[in-house]
Amino acid sequence: MPLRVTTRRLLVLAIGAFGYFTSTPAHSAPISDATKACIGCHEAVTPGIVADWKASRHARVTPAEALTKPRIERRISAALPPAGTAETAVGCAECHRLNAELHPDTFEHNGYRVHIVVSPEDCAACHPEEREQYANNLMANAHGNLQGNPLYRSLAESINGAWSFADGGLALAAPDPLTEADSCLSCHGTRVEVQGLKERSTALGRMTFPVLTGWPNQGVGRVNPDGSKGACSSCHARHQFSIEVARQPATCSQCHKGPDVPAAEVYAVSKHGNLYDSLRASWDFTAVPWVPGEHFTSPTCAGCHVSLLATANGEVVAERTHRMNDRLAWRLFGPVYAQPHPASADTTMLRNSAGLPLPVELTGEPVSSGLISAEEQGARDGRMKKVCSSCHSRQWTDGHFARLVKSIQTTNAGTLAATRLMLAAWDEGLARGLAANDSIFNEAVERTWVANWLFYANSSRFASAMGGADYGVFANGRYHQSANLLQLNDTLKLLRAARAKQPAREGTPLP
Amino acid sequence: MPLRVTTRRLLVLAIGAFGYFTSTPAHSAPISDATKACIGCHEAVTPGIVADWKASRHARVTPAEALTKPRIERRISAALPPAGTAETAVGCAECHRLNAELHPDTFEHNGYRVHIVVSPEDCAACHPEEREQYANNLMANAHGNLQGNPLYRSLAESINGAWSFADGGLALAAPDPLTEADSCLSCHGTRVEVQGLKERSTALGRMTFPVLTGWPNQGVGRVNPDGSKGACSSCHARHQFSIEVARQPATCSQCHKGPDVPAAEVYAVSKHGNLYDSLRASWDFTAVPWVPGEHFTSPTCAGCHVSLLATANGEVVAERTHRMNDRLAWRLFGPVYAQPHPASADTTMLRNSAGLPLPVELTGEPVSSGLISAEEQGARDGRMKKVCSSCHSRQWTDGHFARLVKSIQTTNAGTLAATRLMLAAWDEGLARGLAANDSIFNEAVERTWVANWLFYANSSRFASAMGGADYGVFANGRYHQSANLLQLNDTLKLLRAARAKQPAREGTPLP
Amino acid sequence: MPLRVTTRRLLVLAIGAFGYFTSTPAHSAPISDATKACIGCHEAVTPGIVADWKASRHARVTPAEALTKPRIERRISAALPPAGTAETAVGCAECHRLNAELHPDTFEHNGYRVHIVVSPEDCAACHPEEREQYANNLMANAHGNLQGNPLYRSLAESINGAWSFADGGLALAAPDPLTEADSCLSCHGTRVEVQGLKERSTALGRMTFPVLTGWPNQGVGRVNPDGSKGACSSCHARHQFSIEVARQPATCSQCHKGPDVPAAEVYAVSKHGNLYDSLRASWDFTAVPWVPGEHFTSPTCAGCHVSLLATANGEVVAERTHRMNDRLAWRLFGPVYAQPHPASADTTMLRNSAGLPLPVELTGEPVSSGLISAEEQGARDGRMKKVCSSCHSRQWTDGHFARLVKSIQTTNAGTLAATRLMLAAWDEGLARGLAANDSIFNEAVERTWVANWLFYANSSRFASAMGGADYGVFANGRYHQSANLLQLNDTLKLLRAARAKQPAREGTPLP
Repeated sequence: MPLRVTTRRLLVLAIGAFGYFTSTPAHSAPISDATKACIGCHEAVTPGIVADWKASRHARVTPAEALTKPRIERRISAALPPAGTAETAVGCAECHRLNAELHPDTFEHNGYRVHIVVSPEDCAACHPEEREQYANNLMANAHGNLQGNPLYRSLAESINGAWSFADGGLALAAPDPLTEADSCLSCHGTRVEVQGLKERSTALGRMTFPVLTGWPNQGVGRVNPDGSKGACSSCHARHQFSIEVARQPATCSQCHKGPDVPAAEVYAVSKHGNLYDSLRASWDFTAVPWVPGEHFTSPTCAGCHVSLLATANGEVVAERTHRMNDRLAWRLFGPVYAQPHPASADTTMLRNSAGLPLPVELTGEPVSSGLISAEEQGARDGRMKKVCSSCHSRQWTDGHFARLVKSIQTTNAGTLAATRLMLAAWDEGLARGLAANDSIFNEAVERTWVANWLFYANSSRFASAMGGADYGVFANGRYHQSANLLQLNDTLKLLRAARAKQPAREGTPLP
Repeated sequence: MPLRVTTRRLLVLAIGAFGYFTSTPAHSAPISDATKACIGCHEAVTPGIVADWKASRHARVTPAEALTKPRIERRISAALPPAGTAETAVGCAECHRLNAELHPDTFEHNGYRVHIVVSPEDCAACHPEEREQYANNLMANAHGNLQGNPLYRSLAESINGAWSFADGGLALAAPDPLTEADSCLSCHGTRVEVQGLKERSTALGRMTFPVLTGWPNQGVGRVNPDGSKGACSSCHARHQFSIEVARQPATCSQCHKGPDVPAAEVYAVSKHGNLYDSLRASWDFTAVPWVPGEHFTSPTCAGCHVSLLATANGEVVAERTHRMNDRLAWRLFGPVYAQPHPASADTTMLRNSAGLPLPVELTGEPVSSGLISAEEQGARDGRMKKVCSSCHSRQWTDGHFARLVKSIQTTNAGTLAATRLMLAAWDEGLARGLAANDSIFNEAVERTWVANWLFYANSSRFASAMGGADYGVFANGRYHQSANLLQLNDTLKLLRAARAKQPAREGTPLP
Repeated sequence: MPLRVTTRRLLVLAIGAFGYFTSTPAHSAPISDATKACIGCHEAVTPGIVADWKASRHARVTPAEALTKPRIERRISAALPPAGTAETAVGCAECHRLNAELHPDTFEHNGYRVHIVVSPEDCAACHPEEREQYANNLMANAHGNLQGNPLYRSLAESINGAWSFADGGLALAAPDPLTEADSCLSCHGTRVEVQGLKERSTALGRMTFPVLTGWPNQGVGRVNPDGSKGACSSCHARHQFSIEVARQPATCSQCHKGPDVPAAEVYAVSKHGNLYDSLRASWDFTAVPWVPGEHFTSPTCAGCHVSLLATANGEVVAERTHRMNDRLAWRLFGPVYAQPHPASADTTMLRNSAGLPLPVELTGEPVSSGLISAEEQGARDGRMKKVCSSCHSRQWTDGHFARLVKSIQTTNAGTLAATRLMLAAWDEGLARGLAANDSIFNEAVERTWVANWLFYANSSRFASAMGGADYGVFANGRYHQSANLLQLNDTLKLLRAARAKQPAREGTPLP
């Protein structure tokens, strides 16, 4: 008897096992003939995803069964599933043949017309509410909001472009599509288009397939061949598409761990993250609705931002939403400063008074139109605090968010100091800025300025929002925002001093 | 049958389940009338924490039952619980009404006098030994040791203060209380005081509550309204207060992951951490005493530093301690150098020969008084090595700790080199130091020096102590300490060169 | 009923439990008399490792039983186990007494001749194929490939050496052996040699033990007293030596998490890592062969690089290999540039056209001999893509790897730009390089150049290889490689400017 397990976990298992054998749905649903045909080959060709799908709820529950649940327990939001699909499992054919006429990537495949890229429009056949919510989510527009913003493009080009040594210094060429797909667009989403058809030999003979640009990609704002935006599989990973995976922080961490939006790093050192990591093995990540205290002891990302939460009595605490900022008054991500959230998920139309495509002035003030009102901020704040109230008193919650608002103010003020230093530097010609028709991201000192807001101010704010001070001070936060300011100031002094006495070799102003 | 589990885990489960049904205590204990009254409302108002408490040992075992265990298996260290509480669960009322007269935050709440902040003094009713140990823990004094040390305050102010652009450079204003509570004091603990009473409307009508400063907070050195120091809930998170959570590395990582004290980062890349992550699902985190090999295969933070460890025969390997440095000969955290641990948990009295509130001279020597003796270091070393000996031979253990001692020497030597560079810089006027009545943390070059010891030397030592070389070389250790030295040296050269030829615009010496 | 578990997991447990009681081997195997003697004392002296071993497969299955399995399910590759060991558990004596005559660390121990360091040569008694594969693994040569390469040694010395303040600047002394063992050699492996015998008192009286250099160590390229290279326990941790642990990413992360080879960081933000973290509790990490879809939903490190993979029908997808680059066309780790993998596991013979011990020219071209051919690259590429094909279509896989190849090109190009800047700097005397008979790693500006390839280019490539763009852009990738280039360029400008006007205090050229 080398090892024991905790009595708590065993209680869970014993009770759970009893419930399982008495109340769970059948382990598999009838499979349509078309899907049987798919599986017939693909069980040999790509056995991993077939097995994965067989473990999914889609394989076990028919839409008709799903509709028999009380409204609050449903995972399906359509009143009726597509014609002819109600009584079978949601299999290969049910999704990959849906809306065939809308899909330029539809092709003839062993007697069936199928398409490769299942889009949110396809998922909407059974999940229309989620699709509608997500369409109004900033994330659905992540491709266009980046690619359609000249300022952001300028940053992306300085990162992904090809730097080379030239004339004793550096030269920059435009980035290539493969690099862009592998970099920013990996999360923001690529544009997937059909470039034609190509025949190739396969294990089952020669076949013809559409050739896609920007493939593969699971970015949240992927532009699909059918013109829709987004990829449900970003979070509900293929081919289980499970709520269990989407509710795990690891899912969000794929795009929200880096120092620009370090939610996962902050969560890991928060009390919520501590409890998640320590106790998650006994939590239920599949229940709908999700009941704080009963199914989990502390929230994951989804718990605060997405999931339908209810009390054990079925009273709704928070409605499900796939517009991820429904419970968020402030956009902590500062390009260049934190600000009230944009009113529209398409942010390409935002302009500050200087004509820059930003939600803020370079001196920090939010733009005069295009952001949510103070009233809307209050409503979102209320929704979030309702979630907190499952476990926390009002004084606790108010105290927490007062610190967040203060953190937004102080980190924005730090960025303002950095920006004023940079404005002086551009003005003095120590760096080449917008007035010189140059990118503001392609010089070392400009990157120091970028780090101030993109990394350190953002990180400090995320830490404040989620109670992760260990990350928000010495790991990547306030210590570094202040050190960055000091560094920026001293670098400008050195640049001034260097300019005062140019070495003979350099014909042009420094830098 | 899409998935299988390991036979090992099933053995564990099968054996564990048998044990559970035959030997575990009743699932719930009688609940006092007062606690019933609390739950009556709070099950609706804050259902999450009520459910959380119901899953706790406090809800399942009465103090009287707890006292029936053999001494070595007890989780209660009092000879007797408080009068009238022996035969009921340890519920809301049992803790939130204890020592009411000592609590300025006691208030009238629906016919009961309760207080908000349950303090270590309250927990001591049943856990007096743990409270006593913790009172002698550096962590219990984390608030005062920071706030009462002028030098540390100067660092904190340069981090949390409000930097602004002024006269072409930077100006610093004092930090505000919300920022301090959200930054250093999040871990070090805030001072929680009653500011008065405030009436507000609630779901159950208008009620009056005390208004608290510095709330919420779970910092390890929190100064409570009753004057006590610490928060047991820092590690035994509300409202399960479980030993299971406290024994998980995620708990410690809340404050020990950043580059200043990167225990969690180092553990993650150590063999101990590898085994924890790979095998933890089959370990027992609740057993008392905790038996190496039987309950776990490799230690967590608590296993080495806190827990009561014993052999399967009940022979004590290490006594439980909540004075976390009981098994530590060296304080790896260097302000400015690693040193023997302070003798007292209150470090505000330490002074070096220059009168600075540090445990070391600026040139590295430990202060002459106030630190533990070599003999005490030996005793602590012995206690730690006894823990190691459960799995490791003496040659193995001695070899490991010989490297740690060497690492302390070499990283301290690196910091000495950096400090001598800075002393020269202050002397030459390249930076403004103590002789100029200035903070030694508010210039870019000073922050480079700070990073040498606060981040890179500390990280290298933590890596040596816990066997995490991957972190201690390229991630945040020796590579960076050496690069930092080179950087500091070159920056000073540039500052000298710049001073030799000031640009016209600058009237004052550089920087 | 405070908590539930997922029906999925319970299905797994229920099915698994059934299987366990009907089909698993006996829980323990007969123990040899010699091993009984070991356990007799060590159960008291080092109970943790005895308990650990008892939980191992070695304790439960005899070699004879292991050989009854069909070839594809075998964990033993020898045709016959060593004489006399077939019918007992693989215990202490079976390994620590094997090949006694080859072990300089063999010593008399309570009537038995045992050795301390069990080497791959010992493991080869039952696992000869694995040992042979591993001997051809770069990792087996990690000690010599580092210590026998003058250029790498020069980097290691600048990191591990003793820096001190001297003559207003910095001086470097050679590193000591304890530091080296605690730093690079912790992963690369130490050289373990017998220095003599030493008597010491133990719990069981005075005994004599061999004294070992470089001990303890579990590095992958450890040079053992018997002259063999490697430590199987690096990944199959003592004393369970389990396949379960070796298949977990935490095992690899011990040496592959830092920014030089950040596989673990990248995996954590990849879709594969997301699924691992979210679903691992229901996966089977012990099955042989390992069946994608059935035993796991997404691969761990071992799944892609090491494990024997097969379909549910027993068709081999990938042969087991312990030469970790068998499925890798490119060596992403760039000293200085990514390149085709070395043909031999011993890389000390590689020389570029300038005579430097590198697999590439300083200007990026692969060396003309000593690297695998394009044909061999194709074969390895094919093996890897076969693994991918369990779940991914050919277009998906080809698209993914096209990006990796592009990433190799672009990050190498970035390093070329940085290197050309450095070549100019060395040429101009702004730094002292090889022409000046100086290390190219001991100046601040040289370390900036090192970071370009060692951290940022490597990280970007690992991110491309494993689909972890969140790490590969803002965390430690392309953003930083481009910022590093800009920084390097500007630093050189400042150095030029500073040289143009030396301060009086400096007699020698800057830096």
